[in-house]
Amino acid sequence: MTDTTTGARADLTGLTVEEKAALTSGESFWRTKAVGDIPSVMLTDGPHGLRKQREGGDHLGIGDSVPATCFPPAVALGSSWDAELAERVGTALGVESSIEDVAVILGPGINIKRSPLCGRNFEYLSEDPIVSGVLGAGIVRGIQSQGVGASLKHFAANNQEDDRMRSSSDVDPRPLREIYLRGFQRVVEDAQPHTVMCSYNRINGVFASENPWLLTDVLRGEWGFEGLVVSDWGAVNDRVAALRAGLDLEMPSSGGITDAQVVAAVRDGSLDEAVLDASAQRNADLAVRWAATERVEGPLDVDAHHALAREAASRSIVLLKNDAVDGAPLLPLRDDQSLAVIGAFAEKPRYQGAGSSMIHPTRLDDALTSIRAVAPQAAYAPGFSLAIDASEEETRRLREEAVAAAAGATVAVVFAGLPARLESEGYDREDIDLPADQLALIDAVVAVNPRTVVVLSNGGVVALPFAQSVPAIVEAWLLGQAGGSATADVLFGAVSPSGKLTETVPLRLEDTPAFLNFPGEEGHVRYGEGLFVGYRWYDARRMEVAFPFGHGLSYTTFGYGEATAAPRADGGIEVRVTVTNTGDRAGREVVQIYASLPGSRVQRAPRELKGFASVELAPGESREVAITVRREDLAYWDVRADRWIVEGGEYVVEVGASSRDLRTSATVAVAGDEVRLPLTRESSLAEVMAHPVAGPMVQQALAGMSQMLEGASAIMPEGVSMDKMMGSFPIGRIGMMAGGQVSPEMIDGLLAAANAPQQ
Amino acid sequence: MTDTTTGARADLTGLTVEEKAALTSGESFWRTKAVGDIPSVMLTDGPHGLRKQREGGDHLGIGDSVPATCFPPAVALGSSWDAELAERVGTALGVESSIEDVAVILGPGINIKRSPLCGRNFEYLSEDPIVSGVLGAGIVRGIQSQGVGASLKHFAANNQEDDRMRSSSDVDPRPLREIYLRGFQRVVEDAQPHTVMCSYNRINGVFASENPWLLTDVLRGEWGFEGLVVSDWGAVNDRVAALRAGLDLEMPSSGGITDAQVVAAVRDGSLDEAVLDASAQRNADLAVRWAATERVEGPLDVDAHHALAREAASRSIVLLKNDAVDGAPLLPLRDDQSLAVIGAFAEKPRYQGAGSSMIHPTRLDDALTSIRAVAPQAAYAPGFSLAIDASEEETRRLREEAVAAAAGATVAVVFAGLPARLESEGYDREDIDLPADQLALIDAVVAVNPRTVVVLSNGGVVALPFAQSVPAIVEAWLLGQAGGSATADVLFGAVSPSGKLTETVPLRLEDTPAFLNFPGEEGHVRYGEGLFVGYRWYDARRMEVAFPFGHGLSYTTFGYGEATAAPRADGGIEVRVTVTNTGDRAGREVVQIYASLPGSRVQRAPRELKGFASVELAPGESREVAITVRREDLAYWDVRADRWIVEGGEYVVEVGASSRDLRTSATVAVAGDEVRLPLTRESSLAEVMAHPVAGPMVQQALAGMSQMLEGASAIMPEGVSMDKMMGSFPIGRIGMMAGGQVSPEMIDGLLAAANAPQQ
Repeated sequence: MTDTTTGARADLTGLTVEEKAALTSGESFWRTKAVGDIPSVMLTDGPHGLRKQREGGDHLGIGDSVPATCFPPAVALGSSWDAELAERVGTALGVESSIEDVAVILGPGINIKRSPLCGRNFEYLSEDPIVSGVLGAGIVRGIQSQGVGASLKHFAANNQEDDRMRSSSDVDPRPLREIYLRGFQRVVEDAQPHTVMCSYNRINGVFASENPWLLTDVLRGEWGFEGLVVSDWGAVNDRVAALRAGLDLEMPSSGGITDAQVVAAVRDGSLDEAVLDASAQRNADLAVRWAATERVEGPLDVDAHHALAREAASRSIVLLKNDAVDGAPLLPLRDDQSLAVIGAFAEKPRYQGAGSSMIHPTRLDDALTSIRAVAPQAAYAPGFSLAIDASEEETRRLREEAVAAAAGATVAVVFAGLPARLESEGYDREDIDLPADQLALIDAVVAVNPRTVVVLSNGGVVALPFAQSVPAIVEAWLLGQAGGSATADVLFGAVSPSGKLTETVPLRLEDTPAFLNFPGEEGHVRYGEGLFVGYRWYDARRMEVAFPFGHGLSYTTFGYGEATAAPRADGGIEVRVTVTNTGDRAGREVVQIYASLPGSRVQRAPRELKGFASVELAPGESREVAITVRREDLAYWDVRADRWIVEGGEYVVEVGASSRDLRTSATVAVAGDEVRLPLTRESSLAEVMAHPVAGPMVQQALAGMSQMLEGASAIMPEGVSMDKMMGSFPIGRIGMMAGGQVSPEMIDGLLAAANAPQQ
Repeated sequence: MTDTTTGARADLTGLTVEEKAALTSGESFWRTKAVGDIPSVMLTDGPHGLRKQREGGDHLGIGDSVPATCFPPAVALGSSWDAELAERVGTALGVESSIEDVAVILGPGINIKRSPLCGRNFEYLSEDPIVSGVLGAGIVRGIQSQGVGASLKHFAANNQEDDRMRSSSDVDPRPLREIYLRGFQRVVEDAQPHTVMCSYNRINGVFASENPWLLTDVLRGEWGFEGLVVSDWGAVNDRVAALRAGLDLEMPSSGGITDAQVVAAVRDGSLDEAVLDASAQRNADLAVRWAATERVEGPLDVDAHHALAREAASRSIVLLKNDAVDGAPLLPLRDDQSLAVIGAFAEKPRYQGAGSSMIHPTRLDDALTSIRAVAPQAAYAPGFSLAIDASEEETRRLREEAVAAAAGATVAVVFAGLPARLESEGYDREDIDLPADQLALIDAVVAVNPRTVVVLSNGGVVALPFAQSVPAIVEAWLLGQAGGSATADVLFGAVSPSGKLTETVPLRLEDTPAFLNFPGEEGHVRYGEGLFVGYRWYDARRMEVAFPFGHGLSYTTFGYGEATAAPRADGGIEVRVTVTNTGDRAGREVVQIYASLPGSRVQRAPRELKGFASVELAPGESREVAITVRREDLAYWDVRADRWIVEGGEYVVEVGASSRDLRTSATVAVAGDEVRLPLTRESSLAEVMAHPVAGPMVQQALAGMSQMLEGASAIMPEGVSMDKMMGSFPIGRIGMMAGGQVSPEMIDGLLAAANAPQQ
């Protein structure tokens, strides 16, 4: 972790207001301004590779870029559940940035996958904030190990592309804190990114770019962020308001127009010059620090980074299903089987998504070539056309050809997936379906060959109507430039698959939590599902899913011993469980920890992920895995106290291989944080009765009102106590119901007695 | 409809501030104050009968009351879908109030049944605002035909009991207007109730009792309400704020404490005396008008009102299922069949709910007696105990006895339902299950006798796990004092059932729209399901239900001809359909009209109820039914324009016997309302491009930025237009992305040109 408080500090003494304003906005599309001794630095797109526009070319556009390694996009890397791997990928990103003199690479993106429809989900890690936070922190640590700055994005609650530059994400406090901000908080606190990128959208009506609560109170005040906040490109709406809110750097360039607005605002007193000074200082510090940072010397070791991309991809593939056919699991393939490779994606891989993250890769592996390297006789048929205007006749011909190939082979491997045009930055999907011609192809292939494997290439999850009929399904996401070889590694068993879903695969779009609340309309999107995002929704509503959060198979099997859970001295929980490789291959298991608190005073999902760890085991090997659940991860956001609170009680810790494959559980008592809230006139009768001081006083007073209470009991159901009907009555209005017998002064006296400091 | 602007007006000339303040709050629990010549009047609970506390008794309490007819509570009356019947019941309520010198009866309650868990759902009409509004208006018309004032309640968004005095119903504008306020608007505009009762809860953070937007802007300003607003009992939080917001009458009595606050506020200028004057005038007018109203002379015709209660109950029963057993539908029963009547509710009817609506009935019919009047030999076994502390042994004994009775009879009729303690004003349910012992009883009975009928007594819907195994199910709700005889009328076929569900019966609580958002916590309940309440949710998410909204069978059958839909001169739609009684008994069919607008610019449910009508047909008879869909019922709430807008287009009108038994449809073109919204800097590029004036100008400007656009195309997916990715870019920020080439002045010039009045 790089501490941004250390290192060179720029001296801004003597700079004019104009010069300081200049430091806080872009010179060009990708560069900050040089001012005096303070150099210009370059920021470029990430997040899974460097997208550095060729300098000297079109400085306005966002077009072609220098070759760089295209690592697995976040949808894949997230599925590795491997923070150490994420850190190694981050390090490689830092190396490539440093070689190219890029001070800041714009990533990682850790927004929550609220709906599978979000066009940019391939750039995000998970539907869960702990997965997002832990892996995001790994990436940041890696990048910054090379002195290059990360840019944690898109801050915050930017969970869709539709109308993204105007729409307000209307989110209640608990989901905002516990789901949408939690991952950001984790990354900031653990890895202190040099920059945070504010998002385009509004949050509860206020633009992220001009939201002082978000950019200053929470980010700096609560979380201790020490870096600078950069706008997403074009995210600034009102430059002066943005600066005032804590937005340090406007990108790209306004050609000086908004700098002049800043200067004018300082001059007319509407902007405190100290605010400008602080932002200018942060920009200048970043620039001089970068200037003083030792660079990685080029040229790039293309082979080494490609190998890392392949390793990362192979650990990110999720084996969804691997049923036995004729007594043995269909996968891994054997090189002595006759294979029919089907599907255009085998030859023309879809390995990344469109938009600002689109990398010009150093090389590109396709699956077909990699498969034929192992099984040279493998037949190939494209099966479907990726052209938009494929004729019905062409579609039929391709399908028939593929079916014939499948019929003649021992095993058919169908590479299906989403065509590039169906998911991209900039717009959302309208459904979660694979194209109809591909679904028809899969049905036709499995009809002639029950030994059919489907390999999926997609950035957002898709519905799998063939999940029952096809015996083996490999979710290969978008895997980056080495995805083709990594897929072959997994298919043939050179690597045992170990990825797990970080996002639920639903049965239908209509089942998803944000359905009907996505993408909103008229500039507002209501996060109506609240806390119940992803698996939290399906679990709470007891719904079937196609494949649950955390699911992923291996070519071996793992047994779990009995878990133990013990309180830690730091207030967290230590969970231990022995995992055994019960199969006959080496493999990696991602052990997941879910917690719940039965009888909690607040609403909670049936279980929430609180920790995870990888364990690599040889056949027959056992190992005890210790996983720490941090105390802060047990906390809920208390809206009464406006802060995180750990509720005391007996937590249930479930341990398993997925959110719906829980193998063992333990309970552990956790001491709660103290919350003292004063009684007020609006406190309910039940709350007052439960108070140690006020309770007895009220009990006595109520005794004098027995006549009223007796009357009321006539309209109560038998067996129900008066408390149940009257308990929610605010104490301040009791007098009203008693015909004025109880004065406001009497109530206030009671409250004062209750709230007095205790002896 | 009574026009409250006519009739006597009180003269407040010369009253002191103290006297005027006194007019705006209660003297006692049920009475206003007499001031000078202005008399005190009495308000008492409704809404399905008069709950007038005996005068001279306990003036503080809410206990015993004078006998009155207990008509079917709203859960039942709503199921009649019969506004004319509702009006007759309302008239009877008005008669009973007048005889008892009650100026205002506190009802009807028309809150939307947002969740089946709401403890007070039995007091409400429907999950749909059109049903609620049409029937609510009928009740008000009836009450006010006798000069008695109705009190439309609980205004507004009071859809739960839990924490009802503090909790804020956090609702977005469209659901608030289109679902939660629409019924209130309908009743106010159609029937002008003398009073509206504000609810306890907050709405979007502001107490209903002190919400000027709700009580003044919307209620009076938009809807033209001319009556007075009374607080729910104890709903006033800040008396002066309430008065200022438009709350005219605080109830019950504060013993003068809050009157003094009003006087002080007028004195210190914080409350405009004119505001007090207006409220005092409304109260005084109500009182003097009541004094001048001719009273209905007593005594009450108990027999006639009981007969009406029986008729209303019989039209409210919903026949959910009536499968053939051995070739013939199980119902109606024949008096020559040997019957086993099972279930304690047959003997001890549950006919109303607990709380402020609990009536002291003039008499009470039980089903067992009524059944034995037709079939004197009918056996009876209670089957279960309603005692809270029934032992396991007792439970088993009762079940075994009932099973034996069922085994020995031709037909078993099981009276199951919710014990009174499970639903009440004041608290909500925690599940929608019938008690386990009753479910076990039903299973055991149907196991020995396949000719089993289940008759349900419940105020809120219950899960029906036996829906597949039991051939006939009668939903008999809470039917009021004549429910027992009405149930016998339907069981034996003296009346063919004709009620229909105004609320979906879900399969599971977890399927319901507000699940996870009910009842909220920490003082807030998020209406996260938005517009998708009730059938709108199940239809949009394509979910199975136990029985759909609008469902209800008859002993006869109805055929539908082809519907036609034509525009009306007043802008609405005239729907016509011929309905034929295709069975061999007379019967009533409730014909339902649902509309949708495919391709609407705003989110809409797949179908929305827009009208309905009853048609009574003799066997073989056909009749053309004409139903008017009002233009205002086609409108959606446009948040941009902040008003109702009818969107132009081809509406699909579906006509049928339930929301999922649609028999015929038609389309009709409806002219839209004009909405002109100016372009602003925040207008998107797509919106600007679509504008007749600005579009061509921008097209030209973009041509000069082709270099940038070409660069961008490198990161676009093939086959996707630049518009799709860039269309949501706000026009005001285009300059930023073009490196300052486009100045704010140029943009503003463009906008001015676009927004200039057209020639």
